[in-house]
Amino acid sequence: MNEPKTNPYFSSPLVLASASPRRGKIFEQLGLNFCVQKAEVEESLCEDFSESRPKTLAREKALAVSKNYSGIPVLGFDTLVFFRGKILGKPSSKKEAFSILSELNGNTHRVISGVSLAWNGEAIFSEDDTTEVTFRKLSEKAILNYIDSLEPMDKAGAYGIQGLGAGLVQSISGCYYNVVGVPLAKTLTILKDFEESYDRK
Amino acid sequence: MNEPKTNPYFSSPLVLASASPRRGKIFEQLGLNFCVQKAEVEESLCEDFSESRPKTLAREKALAVSKNYSGIPVLGFDTLVFFRGKILGKPSSKKEAFSILSELNGNTHRVISGVSLAWNGEAIFSEDDTTEVTFRKLSEKAILNYIDSLEPMDKAGAYGIQGLGAGLVQSISGCYYNVVGVPLAKTLTILKDFEESYDRK
Repeated sequence: MNEPKTNPYFSSPLVLASASPRRGKIFEQLGLNFCVQKAEVEESLCEDFSESRPKTLAREKALAVSKNYSGIPVLGFDTLVFFRGKILGKPSSKKEAFSILSELNGNTHRVISGVSLAWNGEAIFSEDDTTEVTFRKLSEKAILNYIDSLEPMDKAGAYGIQGLGAGLVQSISGCYYNVVGVPLAKTLTILKDFEESYDRK
Repeated sequence: MNEPKTNPYFSSPLVLASASPRRGKIFEQLGLNFCVQKAEVEESLCEDFSESRPKTLAREKALAVSKNYSGIPVLGFDTLVFFRGKILGKPSSKKEAFSILSELNGNTHRVISGVSLAWNGEAIFSEDDTTEVTFRKLSEKAILNYIDSLEPMDKAGAYGIQGLGAGLVQSISGCYYNVVGVPLAKTLTILKDFEESYDRK
């Protein structure tokens, strides 16, 4: 496969303010020209627990890293799983993973990812996107076997749709990559708007 | 990441009757225990041009390979892109890729994948699944840059959602992996039904 001469989406350098290997992999897949710097943000201090929390945190992360990069756009992200009004975080034990997956089993939950573009220390665009994910009806044995893979342990909602967890899902409605951690359509639209609106020379 | 002791979905050996590396990758991701044998089926002889064509072809492929494998389930697949009542195949030139992508641009099309499980030369389960894919509104320049990557050239509908083409898509409704080539939820349900219904000893 030849590399494209010009990227169809955004050709200039940018900074990904996230250490998530899953987000980095999506940026690579898109052929973007990027470097990674993790944002040091104390998420527990964020008092927004509504569905706009991912956008709020994405903005804070982009801003935290943008201070160090003059003239280069910085993208921050945050992803959360919502079910029946509450946030489902990363499980702290196999028991908690079982409890979370049993809740999601056979039901539809919402994954919300926020994205924010900061430039010269200012957050210029912030958006979020929602994808609805419907789980298959799984047996208790299948859930326990999935937990044995340890895949749930570092993931919000206790599953990874891009891994073994793909088999837990019946269908989705929205952006697939939003579930992995990047609201891709929104992100590319933001990059295009940035490219058209700002003179980066 | 530890390998799961028991696969959550299906632990017995099976045969994937498809040489598509994208399907093989999904089977690997799911941790299935499989080998690959390409089905020699003359697709052009299939007279079904309706939306059930993928299921018909999946059945033929599974049957063709099943003859060689006694006592082992064989899975066949076929995937087609439908837009406004017609099938969009693999482009034979960059010009045709541009024509296809211009049709899909900003619109919603349907991807239908068929799956069939054959066992001892008999097709036991055959299903299909439909995913609706909505494209972003892209500039002509973005489409041309995407075609320059050559990614469209070997793909039905002239794009790959699992590659650079991810950035063409606004949203989907249905099974994501169905667009890549495997109606995953249907396939895993078929495997479960097979496991529960047939004594393979």
